[in-house]
Amino acid sequence: MNILVTNDDGINSRGIYELVLALREVGNVIVMAPLGEQSAVGHALTVSLPLRVTEFHKNGNFFGFAVSGTPADCVKLALRTFLAERQLPHPDIVVSGINHGRNTAVNIIYSGTVSAATEATVLDVPAIAVSLTSYYPQADFSAAADFMRRFTPQVAQLGLPKGTLLNVNVPPLPRKEIRGIAYTKQGASYWEDEFEKRVDPQERPYYWLKGRYIMEDREEDIDDIAIRERKISITPIHYDLTNHEFLKKLRADWPKEF
Amino acid sequence: MNILVTNDDGINSRGIYELVLALREVGNVIVMAPLGEQSAVGHALTVSLPLRVTEFHKNGNFFGFAVSGTPADCVKLALRTFLAERQLPHPDIVVSGINHGRNTAVNIIYSGTVSAATEATVLDVPAIAVSLTSYYPQADFSAAADFMRRFTPQVAQLGLPKGTLLNVNVPPLPRKEIRGIAYTKQGASYWEDEFEKRVDPQERPYYWLKGRYIMEDREEDIDDIAIRERKISITPIHYDLTNHEFLKKLRADWPKEF
Repeated sequence: MNILVTNDDGINSRGIYELVLALREVGNVIVMAPLGEQSAVGHALTVSLPLRVTEFHKNGNFFGFAVSGTPADCVKLALRTFLAERQLPHPDIVVSGINHGRNTAVNIIYSGTVSAATEATVLDVPAIAVSLTSYYPQADFSAAADFMRRFTPQVAQLGLPKGTLLNVNVPPLPRKEIRGIAYTKQGASYWEDEFEKRVDPQERPYYWLKGRYIMEDREEDIDDIAIRERKISITPIHYDLTNHEFLKKLRADWPKEF
Repeated sequence: MNILVTNDDGINSRGIYELVLALREVGNVIVMAPLGEQSAVGHALTVSLPLRVTEFHKNGNFFGFAVSGTPADCVKLALRTFLAERQLPHPDIVVSGINHGRNTAVNIIYSGTVSAATEATVLDVPAIAVSLTSYYPQADFSAAADFMRRFTPQVAQLGLPKGTLLNVNVPPLPRKEIRGIAYTKQGASYWEDEFEKRVDPQERPYYWLKGRYIMEDREEDIDDIAIRERKISITPIHYDLTNHEFLKKLRADWPKEF
């Protein structure tokens, strides 16, 4: 099995390192990830600037290719041009992560981790985004890495519908404390956020985003609730964004003439 | 009616100027838009850097507030902090555009124009994204601006479901050649794209994205097809990304144990 790994925390982050070590036990892993941290970049593509690729080493060994772009850039560049140019195999599956922090509810729309997996599905390669639901710097990635070593070959074998990816969130617990897997819906939790106004040393104002995450949901079948129940949350997401229900109403009741 | 206007082509672009002139005839318009061009930024939020706000003048008059960030930053900063701080009214509706180029099918997931409208719906303000389906530099924005002057008050009055925005695409034709309005689904057209490899003056390689848009759909009720039929395409989109159909299959057939 050939696996392309990327992320949005950057090629030198802990999460991608743990993920790659685990996946190397079950397949041929190629890493193509952003040179720097790219959190909350959404599904950005770099169109106004060229991209650079450099070889990245870790502990004295070749680890992967670092790209001067976004997570979606990494996946598009790999799948459309770079892998073929280097005579590297086309992947059977793309895995994006392990993100350091949850990607649930509204966070999904801002997530570079998820956007990399979405880009893979746009290009017809099955994909998984995986996140650890903790921002604690010393958080334990081992259960998440362990799970992905088992789950990635299962997904490659079972297959995914065209245009759909799996968004996995793993609680930051030792494996024996995790209470199984829950297949969930994207929840409605949100950020109660605002911008803090400050003044720089030149006396000019600036604004900096800060926020508090509000858990909105109660039902068991929701991503954030599954995690609170110490389960691994797996949400199937797609990019068919049409609100089909409201479309019926528009066609029935709204103006047709200009 | 209070209207917040933003875009992703930047505050000095033609599309936002035409839009603002039209909307000033039907409401009180406040502009908060990126200082520079921000195309294909997806739903990015600036979290690692502070944001600056400057007053932007056009033809000698105050036009709006320029932000050193993305379209989603502009909307979040305006709605969460800036408008209240300046004692400016909270908007009844947010309009993002007029984008210079189509935002249909897969393009929606990369679109800064759409992400600004999505951010407004996240923050419970009804929103419209509007694009002109032409990349021609001298393209005619007048019909699109004209349409938005009529349509924006209608949307504010009729209302939108929570979490749903309208994605409007207008063909670059004189008003009399436009054949009405079509309420459409997001299509399946896509980019056949690749990266061109070049060598810089220091003999180092770089990659630059280029592509060709492939019209995949045939049915009349699809965004790109409505535009080809010289209609204004209006697609209701939401950010409930769960694939509910596939979720049923996952729950029935996929592994539950870790």
